[in-house]
Amino acid sequence: MEQQKRTEIATLGEFGLIRRLTADIPLKNASSLKGVGDDAAVLNYGDKRVLVTTDLLLEGIHFDLTYVPLKHLGYKSAVVNFSDIYAMNGRPCQITVSLGVSKRFSVEDIEELYAGIRLACEIYGVDLVGGDTSASMTGLTISITCMGEAEADKIAYRNGARENDLICVSGDLGAAYMGLQLLEREKAVFAGESDFTPAFEGREYLLERQLKPEARKDIVAALAERNIVPTAMMDISDGLSSELLHICTQSNVGCRIYEDRIPIDYQTAVMAEEFNMSLVTAALNGGEDYELLFTVPLTLHDEVAAIPGVRVIGHITAPSLGCYMLTRDDTEIALRAQGWNSLAEETADEKNEE
Amino acid sequence: MEQQKRTEIATLGEFGLIRRLTADIPLKNASSLKGVGDDAAVLNYGDKRVLVTTDLLLEGIHFDLTYVPLKHLGYKSAVVNFSDIYAMNGRPCQITVSLGVSKRFSVEDIEELYAGIRLACEIYGVDLVGGDTSASMTGLTISITCMGEAEADKIAYRNGARENDLICVSGDLGAAYMGLQLLEREKAVFAGESDFTPAFEGREYLLERQLKPEARKDIVAALAERNIVPTAMMDISDGLSSELLHICTQSNVGCRIYEDRIPIDYQTAVMAEEFNMSLVTAALNGGEDYELLFTVPLTLHDEVAAIPGVRVIGHITAPSLGCYMLTRDDTEIALRAQGWNSLAEETADEKNEE
Repeated sequence: MEQQKRTEIATLGEFGLIRRLTADIPLKNASSLKGVGDDAAVLNYGDKRVLVTTDLLLEGIHFDLTYVPLKHLGYKSAVVNFSDIYAMNGRPCQITVSLGVSKRFSVEDIEELYAGIRLACEIYGVDLVGGDTSASMTGLTISITCMGEAEADKIAYRNGARENDLICVSGDLGAAYMGLQLLEREKAVFAGESDFTPAFEGREYLLERQLKPEARKDIVAALAERNIVPTAMMDISDGLSSELLHICTQSNVGCRIYEDRIPIDYQTAVMAEEFNMSLVTAALNGGEDYELLFTVPLTLHDEVAAIPGVRVIGHITAPSLGCYMLTRDDTEIALRAQGWNSLAEETADEKNEE
Repeated sequence: MEQQKRTEIATLGEFGLIRRLTADIPLKNASSLKGVGDDAAVLNYGDKRVLVTTDLLLEGIHFDLTYVPLKHLGYKSAVVNFSDIYAMNGRPCQITVSLGVSKRFSVEDIEELYAGIRLACEIYGVDLVGGDTSASMTGLTISITCMGEAEADKIAYRNGARENDLICVSGDLGAAYMGLQLLEREKAVFAGESDFTPAFEGREYLLERQLKPEARKDIVAALAERNIVPTAMMDISDGLSSELLHICTQSNVGCRIYEDRIPIDYQTAVMAEEFNMSLVTAALNGGEDYELLFTVPLTLHDEVAAIPGVRVIGHITAPSLGCYMLTRDDTEIALRAQGWNSLAEETADEKNEE
């Protein structure tokens, strides 16, 4: 491996590091009046609504630097926040970035991370307007807050799904989870060996979904082009099952989805077979897909089904009918909030009770 | 000590904990349209400017739970963000809170922390509109983002100080730093003993300044009452010297401040003597005062000097004259950015070169 330059963070100090990381950040949005360099960023949204979301990523919990390149990590950290803004039917405009960094990291490491954040901002037209960097005792901590805008009557909340609405998802599900399984397996196989280059051929899609996910800006744009405002919308970060239950609980409705309608990529299916895992479990509970889950009135069926990358997977019911998936052999299975939940130590039985 | 109830976070899970922490949070600001419970909070600022600031606090770096009660920590975490918004001559309106929590903490611990955050929000009229809580490998991580509003022509940046402007500070300086020294000394003295109750009598003010600082909402209000818009403003979190250099650099000006004008509390002076520390160093470089440092045109001298709790400490000069403090014995000492800087391992000499 090529020897890379390593500058100790101590040689720059806190202010020096922030200056270096945030130098020459041009502002792209008219709503970004003042960016990095004061006590607070200054934004102007005029008559638009302001959306705000925040995400805290901790090393060892949310990411594993054994197999996640820092640039990818930066990219993903930004994109998952953009995804939350799109999930409100909004447009992300600004982010602030706070980092906690232990001595294990060099200035070049943090610049790599920032390069990923900057790339995501460039691709999605988002301004980096603030943040800070400080020491940490152990590992890397990334906290990103994203602000966005939306027209008042276009915002899609979680609580607006109505009986007979169609349930739609974008893209395909379960691939990011399979990518994670693949990375974890290779990590275990190559444990101890440095410089490991496992054979990921033919699985690039799964790795990309895990390491460099994209937010569905295109779907939000496609809906806007057709003047469709979803009655409810969320992004799928904790798994389809968990997110759909959020929408049903907050909207006070039930739902039926159909196993054979759930979009799954070919590589996901192959990996599930290789791992001897249930494909539908991966798709329902896998998490980190960052696809959009939304509901629209039944009358919009043809219009929504015509959007490339959108699949109708079921419909909203009366609350008394509960939340179920109909399997390929016509069995009804209750949906469970099994998503990512690292704070809980539930057993399989406890989960069933939810 | 009374036995307190301890609920393991695992018994609630991530969603359960968030629900419990964010239940019944009423929204107080007209600009808070939608709070906790969706992908993003929704705000409406009409024609006002939106201010955004963020702060990441890490256990072992920014706080020491040996002597910081969790409720105080929550209060302070929120208040330091409000302080950044006031420092822009704005009004804080919303915060989002993200927590990373290791298994060492119980549900009651996190509720204590939240109780402090909620109390600060109540006192300052700020809405808690979002955030998340996740597991962490070690310790406690707190990330707070604060949004505020300001009228476009009232915002005080760091780059607006002009030659001959008066330099003003609110309150007194160095007390929070002395409070920290006191706590650290008592911690060392009582190391190993649990249940320690050191004698802090007569030093309550220093401890309060360190453990439960307030943001100077009153000063911002007093300025507004008198129709005074500072030409530049910052809050003093890294020490007067460091902050004043920020203003001078960004405004391209120099400054003269006078040692005998720097406001210092009696208890601060007594402690400095007891610790055999330089009082002026504590006041210049101590940090965590969360007082306001601002500049106003010379013509406003009488008006600004009449505001209770505000002291004029010097004036802005041409940039060629540099940044100096005139001591009591008429010596000019160059101001140095010696503030909090845990990433740097500078020697005293290196610091002098800045």
